[in-house]
Amino acid sequence: MWEFMEREVIPNEEVFLSQINTDPEKRWKTYPPIIEELKQKAKAEGLWSLFMPAEALEKDGWGAGLSVREYAMLAEISGHSMIGAEVFNCNAPDSGNMELLYRYANDDQKRRWLVPLLNGDIRSCFAMTEPAVASSDARNISTSIQRQGDDYVINGRKWYISGAGDPRCRLCIVMGRQIPPESSSSSSSSSSSNKNAVASHVQHSMILVPMDTEGLKVVRPMGVFGFDDAPHGHMEVIFDNVRVPAKESLLFAEGRGFEMAQSRLGPGRIHHCMRLIGMAERALSLMCKRAISREAFGGTLASRHTIQQTIAHSRIDIDTARLLVLKAAQEIDEKGSKGARGLIAMIKVVAPQMAQRVIDRAIQVHGALGFSQDSPLPHLFIAARTLRIADGPDEVHERTVALLELSKHARNRL
Amino acid sequence: MWEFMEREVIPNEEVFLSQINTDPEKRWKTYPPIIEELKQKAKAEGLWSLFMPAEALEKDGWGAGLSVREYAMLAEISGHSMIGAEVFNCNAPDSGNMELLYRYANDDQKRRWLVPLLNGDIRSCFAMTEPAVASSDARNISTSIQRQGDDYVINGRKWYISGAGDPRCRLCIVMGRQIPPESSSSSSSSSSSNKNAVASHVQHSMILVPMDTEGLKVVRPMGVFGFDDAPHGHMEVIFDNVRVPAKESLLFAEGRGFEMAQSRLGPGRIHHCMRLIGMAERALSLMCKRAISREAFGGTLASRHTIQQTIAHSRIDIDTARLLVLKAAQEIDEKGSKGARGLIAMIKVVAPQMAQRVIDRAIQVHGALGFSQDSPLPHLFIAARTLRIADGPDEVHERTVALLELSKHARNRL
Amino acid sequence: MWEFMEREVIPNEEVFLSQINTDPEKRWKTYPPIIEELKQKAKAEGLWSLFMPAEALEKDGWGAGLSVREYAMLAEISGHSMIGAEVFNCNAPDSGNMELLYRYANDDQKRRWLVPLLNGDIRSCFAMTEPAVASSDARNISTSIQRQGDDYVINGRKWYISGAGDPRCRLCIVMGRQIPPESSSSSSSSSSSNKNAVASHVQHSMILVPMDTEGLKVVRPMGVFGFDDAPHGHMEVIFDNVRVPAKESLLFAEGRGFEMAQSRLGPGRIHHCMRLIGMAERALSLMCKRAISREAFGGTLASRHTIQQTIAHSRIDIDTARLLVLKAAQEIDEKGSKGARGLIAMIKVVAPQMAQRVIDRAIQVHGALGFSQDSPLPHLFIAARTLRIADGPDEVHERTVALLELSKHARNRL
Amino acid sequence: MWEFMEREVIPNEEVFLSQINTDPEKRWKTYPPIIEELKQKAKAEGLWSLFMPAEALEKDGWGAGLSVREYAMLAEISGHSMIGAEVFNCNAPDSGNMELLYRYANDDQKRRWLVPLLNGDIRSCFAMTEPAVASSDARNISTSIQRQGDDYVINGRKWYISGAGDPRCRLCIVMGRQIPPESSSSSSSSSSSNKNAVASHVQHSMILVPMDTEGLKVVRPMGVFGFDDAPHGHMEVIFDNVRVPAKESLLFAEGRGFEMAQSRLGPGRIHHCMRLIGMAERALSLMCKRAISREAFGGTLASRHTIQQTIAHSRIDIDTARLLVLKAAQEIDEKGSKGARGLIAMIKVVAPQMAQRVIDRAIQVHGALGFSQDSPLPHLFIAARTLRIADGPDEVHERTVALLELSKHARNRL
Repeated sequence: MWEFMEREVIPNEEVFLSQINTDPEKRWKTYPPIIEELKQKAKAEGLWSLFMPAEALEKDGWGAGLSVREYAMLAEISGHSMIGAEVFNCNAPDSGNMELLYRYANDDQKRRWLVPLLNGDIRSCFAMTEPAVASSDARNISTSIQRQGDDYVINGRKWYISGAGDPRCRLCIVMGRQIPPESSSSSSSSSSSNKNAVASHVQHSMILVPMDTEGLKVVRPMGVFGFDDAPHGHMEVIFDNVRVPAKESLLFAEGRGFEMAQSRLGPGRIHHCMRLIGMAERALSLMCKRAISREAFGGTLASRHTIQQTIAHSRIDIDTARLLVLKAAQEIDEKGSKGARGLIAMIKVVAPQMAQRVIDRAIQVHGALGFSQDSPLPHLFIAARTLRIADGPDEVHERTVALLELSKHARNRL
Repeated sequence: MWEFMEREVIPNEEVFLSQINTDPEKRWKTYPPIIEELKQKAKAEGLWSLFMPAEALEKDGWGAGLSVREYAMLAEISGHSMIGAEVFNCNAPDSGNMELLYRYANDDQKRRWLVPLLNGDIRSCFAMTEPAVASSDARNISTSIQRQGDDYVINGRKWYISGAGDPRCRLCIVMGRQIPPESSSSSSSSSSSNKNAVASHVQHSMILVPMDTEGLKVVRPMGVFGFDDAPHGHMEVIFDNVRVPAKESLLFAEGRGFEMAQSRLGPGRIHHCMRLIGMAERALSLMCKRAISREAFGGTLASRHTIQQTIAHSRIDIDTARLLVLKAAQEIDEKGSKGARGLIAMIKVVAPQMAQRVIDRAIQVHGALGFSQDSPLPHLFIAARTLRIADGPDEVHERTVALLELSKHARNRL
Repeated sequence: MWEFMEREVIPNEEVFLSQINTDPEKRWKTYPPIIEELKQKAKAEGLWSLFMPAEALEKDGWGAGLSVREYAMLAEISGHSMIGAEVFNCNAPDSGNMELLYRYANDDQKRRWLVPLLNGDIRSCFAMTEPAVASSDARNISTSIQRQGDDYVINGRKWYISGAGDPRCRLCIVMGRQIPPESSSSSSSSSSSNKNAVASHVQHSMILVPMDTEGLKVVRPMGVFGFDDAPHGHMEVIFDNVRVPAKESLLFAEGRGFEMAQSRLGPGRIHHCMRLIGMAERALSLMCKRAISREAFGGTLASRHTIQQTIAHSRIDIDTARLLVLKAAQEIDEKGSKGARGLIAMIKVVAPQMAQRVIDRAIQVHGALGFSQDSPLPHLFIAARTLRIADGPDEVHERTVALLELSKHARNRL
Repeated sequence: MWEFMEREVIPNEEVFLSQINTDPEKRWKTYPPIIEELKQKAKAEGLWSLFMPAEALEKDGWGAGLSVREYAMLAEISGHSMIGAEVFNCNAPDSGNMELLYRYANDDQKRRWLVPLLNGDIRSCFAMTEPAVASSDARNISTSIQRQGDDYVINGRKWYISGAGDPRCRLCIVMGRQIPPESSSSSSSSSSSNKNAVASHVQHSMILVPMDTEGLKVVRPMGVFGFDDAPHGHMEVIFDNVRVPAKESLLFAEGRGFEMAQSRLGPGRIHHCMRLIGMAERALSLMCKRAISREAFGGTLASRHTIQQTIAHSRIDIDTARLLVLKAAQEIDEKGSKGARGLIAMIKVVAPQMAQRVIDRAIQVHGALGFSQDSPLPHLFIAARTLRIADGPDEVHERTVALLELSKHARNRL
């Protein structure tokens, strides 16, 4: 896989960037042809949908039968390039969506959505985060899903829906709050405040909504610092009385949204974290090359102790983070996502901060080049920075780690 | 001034951003009309070109007669908004250029360039940094300036020339290496390697070049993490046999480029650092407002100890940095830039890092909103991050501080 | 004063240490004669009790009429040596006790205790912290003070009572919880739990107890890491039915203990923080001397960039901390301790951490010498470390800073 | 082993401390009897000399046949208590000395020194570091070893010779510079300056010197902050014409001192680092217990987010460090110390800093108790702090890591 990255992916990063349309009108209606070429090559070499759970290979012939830990090492490699994951059909949010459909969709839903996703023919998005509420606290999600006859009617506003800008995106998996059929939305809000936390966690469902459904409006691309990450994008999306047939659109069962969302997170965090490690390795490699080639004040940067210290700290930071993530991956393989929740919380804190730090140092060593479009470093930096917020802020995960630690010493005392 | 910021500037930030042209063709040929409206209002209220040295008021009626320290406090206020400095005609690089022209230009040059700059009628840029060399080491600057008859002929490539994208930009002050009239550029490079550091510092000159001179080509906008900061921009500029009349174009004298560049830096760094403090104050203010208004996990963010700690550290970081910068400003007033060089080096290390840290925390408290176009935080963050590289990386300044400290204990022993 | 430090104090540090008795029996019954010699010299030169409030000079002829800010700069100088403060009769806890007596004691009490303290004839201690409770939360103080007839009877256990080991220590100012005359201690504890926070703050009183009072038992010296700081010490003290005459022993008034303790803290924190800055300056000076003189790997330590960076960061850390403490001192002069409470909280967080960091770096540069008895660095390090805990942990002060900051944006919303 | 620690070792820490003689005269002539009791128990349970290389078990019946990685996990457990390693006869410097003797001593030397050490009947020390030179640069070691007839004569001053204070210490392994038999010490110093680095590394030898040899004077205990770690101690030792028979005293061969010292370091650093991890685990455990039991400001410390954050960071710091050290141990098992030198350098930077940080946080959570003699935390803190200096400062190891990293990208370019 590394050989494929070096031969096909990294040399084509510039081609990819040059093929993104700069005209604001067409920016979201086209996509770089190079990406489809690379996907075909990767598929032909069997480097395809590797993230799929091991059991999917023998049962359905999907994926490569890899354990979470085995795939983790490949996810690191794909992370060296911002386009790596998509080339191998392993990119978020499609990979998480595919895993979700694999686990919870019925056969018809699999045929309609999972198969073309696994083939790389379509793209998908996952609509959870909302601008008005703290999405890290699940009880806050307010987009409503209401049963009306044989349909569900969805109303709400979501943002930072990654992939929703892509012209190939066909499916939107919407997470929303289930409103009892008889209640109006106004009475719902008053009654919900009377319910306790446990109850509120079983109020959410996931609905499969085709992107071209009436009422689903992609309002605008949200920025990540100065980037818009076209053509995938991170879009603001309005659901304005979006109506879909209940039977074919409900994923799994009503009220099971959080349970499914949780199951999606374990391996997904491994993937994110390992890609972050790949990103940090890329940055360190660029840092070293720059340090060797750049001269200032009578010597190469590499000859200075301060730069050497920076390189040493980066190597240490990367290697320790990798060991922790691989340990978490192994624990998922052995105990499942729930049993590994302490380690998963730890890597979610460690890996994004580590990557931000290492990439920031690489930028500093590069000078102005480091924040220019001539370097992959700005994209890497922003990706690492935003992952400190996506999937829950550090503080939430630190609390998980702390409570597990404290529970070793005394139960029921917090 | 604070009242003007709150009344006129901050509410118009969104207007400014909405008036920037998104069409890549027109992006660099227009500018937001709001900025000129605000400039007229600021001028009318006397909030204009305040950075000018105190003596300029009585001698020529320019500026407001403020000391460096007095202006520093206003620079902080203007830093609360990314458009503040320009509204008050105090923005870099124009302010530094005006100061340079005020100190070193002859009367004709002042009439032609300084007066319209002070009036805010034109904009200017300062072409120093080059892609191929470490510009923090002055000896590396390689753009050539050669006397040919009555002209200077300039050849070279510069990048990150801020303001060069603006359609109102008329003047480019070019820093280059003076080549002896008789020597060819190839022999120059071989001979220069035989010269010592002192000699190489007196090889540079500054030339005033009108932006529309033949051979001066603005090649492309350079990115700063996804942003292009249109319409000013940070442009790559090629000087391809740019020919200007020697007499009217030479600033001050041949070989005095570094001396002038140094004098430009002292007050300029105060301005940058105080604006960074203003930026950090803006971020802290946004952080507090968010913390008070956002609820998660059963309480406002402001009620959590970790958020309180973040706020406290930010207040401490800002206040200590401000005291240090004001101390440096006072020392410039009392001892000049050279006498204050230790403190100037210290603030260049402290202020950008502090601002990056505080703004990064504010982003974290905001969640996804914090890196979106709906918040000023991404622009603030990027501005702080790039200022850790502009004007010399931290390491160079740390060395200055260390050598001054060591020299108290023993001379001539390093 | 600096001249006196260099001439008399610093050269006698080793003498002082060599005169401390190593025999555990006699360790707390003698004190180094050099300290009394130096005190006489300092007194003769007018460098004496300089911390006393400015008004004390004109009213009573005590102190030197210095503002808090003026004295702060002298406190820094005295901090260069661990024995500096005592030589100038400005050492904690005596200085705080003198200020307390000056403000709140009646004339008889002043004659008996304040005058000999100001003369340096006796020493004193301040008994507040208790092993069983978190003393940073005032409501927890549990030592009881009960009126019985014309006496107060005191019962409780205190520790880390600095100065209580000194054979010259004659006075102990005890902070305790006032128990209503009629109530037994058991009913008191149950009733106290029904009272709100405001009430609990006015339950405390301060009592002046001669060290030789029956029932006051100095149990053992408490360690600070491996040091015992003989002969002053930080002692564990038991009050076992200690009985003193109420009229002559009550300081100020019943229930006003916290009010007095608070007033003691403002200037006291300035003194501590400025001494910490002096300690850090001493460490930086030792670091530079070592860096210049020590050779390794083919050059002096001072020639290495990493060491230069360490020196630069230390200079920056010290200078920023000093500016903040002086600003706090000035604010106390202008607005009183209450008006300056935000800044006072900030310096309590900043200065000890800064000093610990700088001294830790100095130790690292010194190698093994840095933690040996041949260097003052271990004492300096431990002093800085313990001051991160004494007078309330960082978190309490950070909360004060945060709440003040948040209150600018919205009142009554936390 | 953990069960033995909980049952026998940890409960006896206080007994150990109480049995150390406080009389300065007798402090270095006795040792706590409890330690010998515990050693007998550990030996009886087979928890003895576990550090010995795996091959020593089958060849000579020594040790437990553990790989470096297997022993590492036990070293962590022993690190929970400051007396753990000695109880299991695995304490530095004896363990390193035993390994050295096992690898390089001849049969007579093994009989005389190794066997009683393995039995725990005697103790030993390793005399390398010198006060006058930077011992991290091996070329600086200046103690002279000169062949005179059938003897070696040793002259020099060493300090921080751990274990040399113990009355049971019988053997001192001295590292010194071999002086050619004919040369005087003065000519040696002038000639040595003409030799290059490679040559200077083969000038050193190791000599086995009985502690009671005439001329070997234990001058004084060196302090580590305020501790002296009696009865082992870290002594200053003078070699004043110490004369020993050449044949029986030379270890291995002349000029091979550094080669032997290097081989001693690999596994030794694993042991140190794993014990540091055990120390950090002990600190975290104490931190959690304190957080659960201590109340302040209306709740337990454990209920506060800031404390939870501290606990989470500590858990993350410990677990990442452990994974790195175990990885290094495994690499030693697979590739030898030289092949693992990058990882060994990394753990030497990571583990002591990590332990210092975690223990410092534990102290902060404990308040004054945390630096008192009633808590093991001060000893743990000091041990971690000094290990940042022992075995070479961080900077030397960072350089090793950096050069290995840079060498991946270009050889021979620094």
